Amino acid sequence: MRDSYVSRVGRAAALIARCDPVVYEEGQYAHALTPEQLQSYEQNGFLVLPEVLTAQEVNALREEATSLENNPAVQEGKEVIREPGGTALRSIFRVHQLGRRLADLPRDPRFLEVARQILGSEVYIHQSRVNMKPALDGKEFYWHSDFETWHVEDGMPAMRALSCSVLLTDNTPFNGPLTLIPGSHRQFVACVGETPEENYKTSLRRQDIGVPDPLSLRMLAEQGGLQAVTAPAGSVVFFDCNTLHSSGGNLSPWARSNVFMVYNSVENQLVAPFHGMAPRPEHIAARKDIKALSALAVAA
Amino acid sequence: MRDSYVSRVGRAAALIARCDPVVYEEGQYAHALTPEQLQSYEQNGFLVLPEVLTAQEVNALREEATSLENNPAVQEGKEVIREPGGTALRSIFRVHQLGRRLADLPRDPRFLEVARQILGSEVYIHQSRVNMKPALDGKEFYWHSDFETWHVEDGMPAMRALSCSVLLTDNTPFNGPLTLIPGSHRQFVACVGETPEENYKTSLRRQDIGVPDPLSLRMLAEQGGLQAVTAPAGSVVFFDCNTLHSSGGNLSPWARSNVFMVYNSVENQLVAPFHGMAPRPEHIAARKDIKALSALAVAA
Repeated sequence: MRDSYVSRVGRAAALIARCDPVVYEEGQYAHALTPEQLQSYEQNGFLVLPEVLTAQEVNALREEATSLENNPAVQEGKEVIREPGGTALRSIFRVHQLGRRLADLPRDPRFLEVARQILGSEVYIHQSRVNMKPALDGKEFYWHSDFETWHVEDGMPAMRALSCSVLLTDNTPFNGPLTLIPGSHRQFVACVGETPEENYKTSLRRQDIGVPDPLSLRMLAEQGGLQAVTAPAGSVVFFDCNTLHSSGGNLSPWARSNVFMVYNSVENQLVAPFHGMAPRPEHIAARKDIKALSALAVAA
Repeated sequence: MRDSYVSRVGRAAALIARCDPVVYEEGQYAHALTPEQLQSYEQNGFLVLPEVLTAQEVNALREEATSLENNPAVQEGKEVIREPGGTALRSIFRVHQLGRRLADLPRDPRFLEVARQILGSEVYIHQSRVNMKPALDGKEFYWHSDFETWHVEDGMPAMRALSCSVLLTDNTPFNGPLTLIPGSHRQFVACVGETPEENYKTSLRRQDIGVPDPLSLRMLAEQGGLQAVTAPAGSVVFFDCNTLHSSGGNLSPWARSNVFMVYNSVENQLVAPFHGMAPRPEHIAARKDIKALSALAVAA
């Protein structure tokens, strides 16, 4: 297969025009978003829907996330990533298989139907996680395109995946909200540098490889600006797999936590990683459990 | 002298009520701020004045600061503090004696008269610096009260000093703006832990000693909220020496830099440091050059 998105081959940075659609099948595969919402997603590379979940739903999810955090078996598991230079939990992966309510979440029609509509096909969960930002010392996530990593390290062929992030706490300017560069999804930033073996063991704590160069970042930020998703708990943001994003540290005295579910098109299943090394483990990039999701029955 | 603000003696954290005024001599010593502005300062512990300097003035100051940054002699000097874990410049101290325009700044009546009015006396410069936050990787400043350090490490007797920060670049939610806890200046947070010898050699890069405990911080933040000074270049913020503040990292692709001038009352000159160790050097805490400032003649 010809690689349309070559990255980390040691050569200079480059901007490569996206050769995949953003919204597939003209958004006709399912009907969840309005034409205006769909257009905004296509143009900006993300869409924020305020307060989709009720306070009760959010509380229940947050309780489940907290009980996973405090569960000794989970803490010992490979799914747990700790803060750089610390022991506090930064992320728990594969939460859609660890928690009961979190297991239902990807099949909730409020999220699943949006994913099916945008990706124009049936979908499955490529990755799920909760990102905690502990109060007062939660560390930043540096700028990156998810797709860059998923392509190079996981062998995701095309830009036909998206993240759905559910805010479990209020996200404020002070607790390190997700921050995106509108329009950046239309270009692929080929990154400098080569990938070390088992890069994920450090990169999920602090990413140094597969990050865009300063000039490309600045150019895209001058063009599109920066937008932080500051929104109340229960709000949801959908963002394209190639939209550049980051989030700052949390200096506020309140914890921040968000669930991320990555939907991938069943037409876009993983192949061999493009860097030629061993694939990352199943709990970071699904290869086996890739059955198309069916919508959860909604309570009458 | 009885120490009203005991801190870092190894015992538990404590909140001690402030026993000094915030505005001295009822704000009648000079006349720069309106009664409303003065009241807001007294209540919140800070005051933001938008766009005090013209674009020309700011550009000239920023150029001077940049030329100091790039000056090899300055880079070799003791006045320079580098980023934690890096080599980029974080702060340059004593800038009011290193630069010509920066030397005039403390005597500018737009700042000096505010300091005299609030502190109710003649004033001198206790400390000056430029804080740079390099684009994409400028690091945070953790929560602290300046007075806590100036009292314990420098022997500043009373809360009769203030900082005047002049924004040399736009300060946005994305580049690590100064963030304050309104009302926190009315209580002194006695900090846990003891001070190592020559603490300033590490604390100016990353402060671990003399920082408030998480519960006190949370309590004060619940009471007063958090406020970020996001304002255009040329804006000025005055804040009390005991107002708790911090600033996040700079993940934006644009550098952020601010000048800080610390005015101290001539009635509040330094005594022996309260931790009983050697005083910090002159470029961090003035003991010799403490003549009252006279206002710069304003061009006709």
